[in-house]
Amino acid sequence: MQDALIINSRDLDFQLFEVLDAEALTQRARHADHSRETFNAALETAHAVAVEKFATHNRLLDEHEPQFDGQRVTLPLEVKEALDALRATGFLAAGKDYEYGGMQLPSLISFACLSLFKSANIATSSYAMLTTANANVIERFGSASQKRKYLQALFEGRTFGTMALTEPQAGSSLSDLVTSATPNPDGTYSIRGNKIFISAGDHELSENIVHLVLARIPGGPPGVKGISLFTVPKYHVNDDGSRGARNDVALAGLIHKMGWRGTTSTMLSFGEHGECIGELIGEPHQGLAYMFHMMNEARIGVGLGAVMLGYRGYLASLDYARERPQGRHPTNKNPLDPQLPLIEHADVRRMLLAQKAYVEGAYALCLYAARLVDEQKTGESETARGEAGLLLDLLTPVVKSWPSQWCLEANSLAIQIHGGYGYTREYPVEQFYRDNRLNMIHEGTHGIQAIDLLGRKVVMKQGAALELLGREIRETINNARSHAPLHAYAEALEGTWRDLTATVEALLPTLASDTGRALANANAFLEAFGHIVMAWTWLKQAVVANAAQPHAKSDADKDFYSGKLHACQWFFRWELPRVALMLATLRRLDDTTLNMAPQWF
Amino acid sequence: MQDALIINSRDLDFQLFEVLDAEALTQRARHADHSRETFNAALETAHAVAVEKFATHNRLLDEHEPQFDGQRVTLPLEVKEALDALRATGFLAAGKDYEYGGMQLPSLISFACLSLFKSANIATSSYAMLTTANANVIERFGSASQKRKYLQALFEGRTFGTMALTEPQAGSSLSDLVTSATPNPDGTYSIRGNKIFISAGDHELSENIVHLVLARIPGGPPGVKGISLFTVPKYHVNDDGSRGARNDVALAGLIHKMGWRGTTSTMLSFGEHGECIGELIGEPHQGLAYMFHMMNEARIGVGLGAVMLGYRGYLASLDYARERPQGRHPTNKNPLDPQLPLIEHADVRRMLLAQKAYVEGAYALCLYAARLVDEQKTGESETARGEAGLLLDLLTPVVKSWPSQWCLEANSLAIQIHGGYGYTREYPVEQFYRDNRLNMIHEGTHGIQAIDLLGRKVVMKQGAALELLGREIRETINNARSHAPLHAYAEALEGTWRDLTATVEALLPTLASDTGRALANANAFLEAFGHIVMAWTWLKQAVVANAAQPHAKSDADKDFYSGKLHACQWFFRWELPRVALMLATLRRLDDTTLNMAPQWF
Repeated sequence: MQDALIINSRDLDFQLFEVLDAEALTQRARHADHSRETFNAALETAHAVAVEKFATHNRLLDEHEPQFDGQRVTLPLEVKEALDALRATGFLAAGKDYEYGGMQLPSLISFACLSLFKSANIATSSYAMLTTANANVIERFGSASQKRKYLQALFEGRTFGTMALTEPQAGSSLSDLVTSATPNPDGTYSIRGNKIFISAGDHELSENIVHLVLARIPGGPPGVKGISLFTVPKYHVNDDGSRGARNDVALAGLIHKMGWRGTTSTMLSFGEHGECIGELIGEPHQGLAYMFHMMNEARIGVGLGAVMLGYRGYLASLDYARERPQGRHPTNKNPLDPQLPLIEHADVRRMLLAQKAYVEGAYALCLYAARLVDEQKTGESETARGEAGLLLDLLTPVVKSWPSQWCLEANSLAIQIHGGYGYTREYPVEQFYRDNRLNMIHEGTHGIQAIDLLGRKVVMKQGAALELLGREIRETINNARSHAPLHAYAEALEGTWRDLTATVEALLPTLASDTGRALANANAFLEAFGHIVMAWTWLKQAVVANAAQPHAKSDADKDFYSGKLHACQWFFRWELPRVALMLATLRRLDDTTLNMAPQWF
Repeated sequence: MQDALIINSRDLDFQLFEVLDAEALTQRARHADHSRETFNAALETAHAVAVEKFATHNRLLDEHEPQFDGQRVTLPLEVKEALDALRATGFLAAGKDYEYGGMQLPSLISFACLSLFKSANIATSSYAMLTTANANVIERFGSASQKRKYLQALFEGRTFGTMALTEPQAGSSLSDLVTSATPNPDGTYSIRGNKIFISAGDHELSENIVHLVLARIPGGPPGVKGISLFTVPKYHVNDDGSRGARNDVALAGLIHKMGWRGTTSTMLSFGEHGECIGELIGEPHQGLAYMFHMMNEARIGVGLGAVMLGYRGYLASLDYARERPQGRHPTNKNPLDPQLPLIEHADVRRMLLAQKAYVEGAYALCLYAARLVDEQKTGESETARGEAGLLLDLLTPVVKSWPSQWCLEANSLAIQIHGGYGYTREYPVEQFYRDNRLNMIHEGTHGIQAIDLLGRKVVMKQGAALELLGREIRETINNARSHAPLHAYAEALEGTWRDLTATVEALLPTLASDTGRALANANAFLEAFGHIVMAWTWLKQAVVANAAQPHAKSDADKDFYSGKLHACQWFFRWELPRVALMLATLRRLDDTTLNMAPQWF
């Protein structure tokens, strides 16, 4: 079945070892025990668990979403079996210190492993991803006591974690959170309030759940400056680490979604009976800063999830297009000739090529971001670490949003290739499309990413991040110039980059003097910027492919490099040219949207 | 609840009476009994039935899809109640002759009424739409006996109809149909074969079902030239019109879809026990021609369905954006200020304006196509009728595909405006998105529409249709020139149209000499052409709005016209410019897709 098609392993190998030089990371002290062989062993284990334990119940879980009987939430048994396999193979702590039982794998390899679980089953893998994100916050900002209570249990998956930010009346506007945290004499806090859309907010998959809750300490400043962060466990944890009494965190209801159905989405009420106890993380009123410290990685995780759903649909539709006979070439009018496989039709090939460009390009971008996380953590100089952090800050809105938009489009193309079958629940592609629609919404909507990019990231530190990215892009352009078939792309990217920086220059005064107007078309800026980043990502791949092709060891390898070069060509010919239009509209500060009066609708 | 928001009645009024001059149709003999008042009465009745009987079970039907217990198909009772109300109010025969109990309404008004049922509940309205399409074929090509047997029953909804074209091994390739029709001594035929994706193929909503089945008479020519058309009833019909014995048409299974769940999608087996009797319609081997004769109207129906799903989502998200407080302007850092309604945010307004441009523009286009159907049927001269038919042939691929693509995009924007709520099944917009994804697939996929447009419609009769459209467009451009605010759009449309005709000229030699290559980018041609048609449609509306605004009777009316003018501006500034890029790529016969070898994927 197509369910086993979770990745093109040749592409993963290309990204890690040919484009991103993962092996170089083994030179660093933290990863000194590692080698290409240990990386591959981890990837192979992840691949096996993903195929055997995760992919196998992806459709079943969609059809049997979590049930709440008023007492407990039940999920198909296969979810726990898959997560048990994940625990047993140690992937919850893949990047963590040996002292916690971790593997000290680089982020690049951890993310690559994670991508396989996501591809196989996005809903089941979410429980693990949220637990890792939660543990990262406690590891970085928690007290010694909080670490003792939770960290080992999270790494081992005995406790699962959540991020409890959103409230019904506030939505994306964290400034309007009202959940309160009232100090108790013993130093704990009484938490009271309602949260919504809390993924993995309740289940029986782990012994305990620890929520990271944003709440206000009464008397603190209004807005985001008065938000603090708390650990709030479902069950209290005794000093010896054993599970104590139930805390007053109640499941008020499950939310039923279009897709991604296997991850419980919950409404939680904290302290309805006045007995919900939480512990402050770090300092009061610093909650948002702590949460945002982890946001880059969480957002790479969302982008990567979007990629893998797109990737899975691409592989399914490629397989289908190769197998399914359907029609003949438009010039062949002889009905007695046998039907051709779908892939022989130009329009089907277009839809495959577009998918390939979107999903492989977005995969390359996400893995590059993971490589930047490594650089930020273990880079060889302070400059290198600082620059990686800066680049990551700038690119995160793109890493989160570009795959959410374009890999969803890929999923739509995968359906289209299947024709009527693609629209049925007997084939896997419709689920990917439903699942993927979430990614433009959670962890900061598309609109919020756009404002973050244009209003903050582009201008931060006097544009230092943008300048740094420009340097990186010019380096790729220079490399491409030594490859004759890539000259035209080098020129095109250089021109478009010049266009972008001119646009930013033109917007700067308005950003300062009339921010609302300058940000009104932030979405177009995000799209234009995203496409440039993607063109750069494709050119990087093309440089590697063109250099490697003459030394290809097999016809299959030669074909693989041809595919990379051709997808790059497609992106530069069919997608990049649109950027100039968007930039021109941005430069003239088009006010069509802004001037549309509400009563005119 | 938002469920009542099925249309902006002011917009419908604008389209019918200000843009398309529906009243002029009452001058024609066939519609002489009608007046603006009778049109409005029909629309009001349709609106009431749609809101009270159709909209009320739209979600319920999605959640309780048809069930097959091996014997019969059951649906929620509300479906039959709604269709009974439709029968009782006569809408199944809205356009038909008085002698059949019809209302002799113009197609324009029938389609406008139909649009309200589609908006309220696309799945339930499909049973009616398929019945009308089926009846149209029998009315046009059936024998006197066939008409006697079926027509009155179809118009009254005692019998429902289907179109049974697709087979599992053939898909879109009708040339590869294998269902056989063997002549019997009594003049009937024994039908044998399997059909798939037959909408409304089985149910208990009507006393009988009559399938229009494409099949081959043995010994006929291969390919599409050997396909004949048959009436195949579920129950035989006695000479007195009463229901006879069961015919050998068996439901082999229901297909479960991503959306549009309330319309049964069936696998049917004909004559598995050798006792399936059908009757030939018209002449042998002419089946496809008969079927295609009805295709224009069927495809307008698909386009209109796509529009209404988009329209419904637009109205729901507009309502939500006006009601939901969320955040503040980017320049307001004071968290003590109250939150603003979503519509105050520029990016939300962008998403509303884009939806408005897509759905109102597509609605205008579909209603214009319905107006052409009237012109084709009752136009005052043979020239007028012939030209309307020619225009309709050319525009049908656009009418079918443009709304399917862009009103789906509108549905995605409606979800986005709702944020996390939009992704849940507690709000209506996710269903519209799922329902709408079908429209790019059925009644000829997007790819097939593209080849039909570039390979057939543009070049037919030495390009006469394209020339005619050019004349119509130039007329609108000339009208726009007498409105100062529209000058820029007139220029833009003129330039783009010139670009398009130059592109067609450039492609003609290759279309003749190397058809495969010329058609390889047919999809881009369809998109470019579609956007031009839409720009024209918006300019037509803008001309009317700009002329009417000084005489507006109320502030609300003035606002309405401002909205039309502003949506036109948005389309010309943000959407039309992309056409030039696509045309340039088409002119240079880009071969990226064509040259992508299957083994490179």
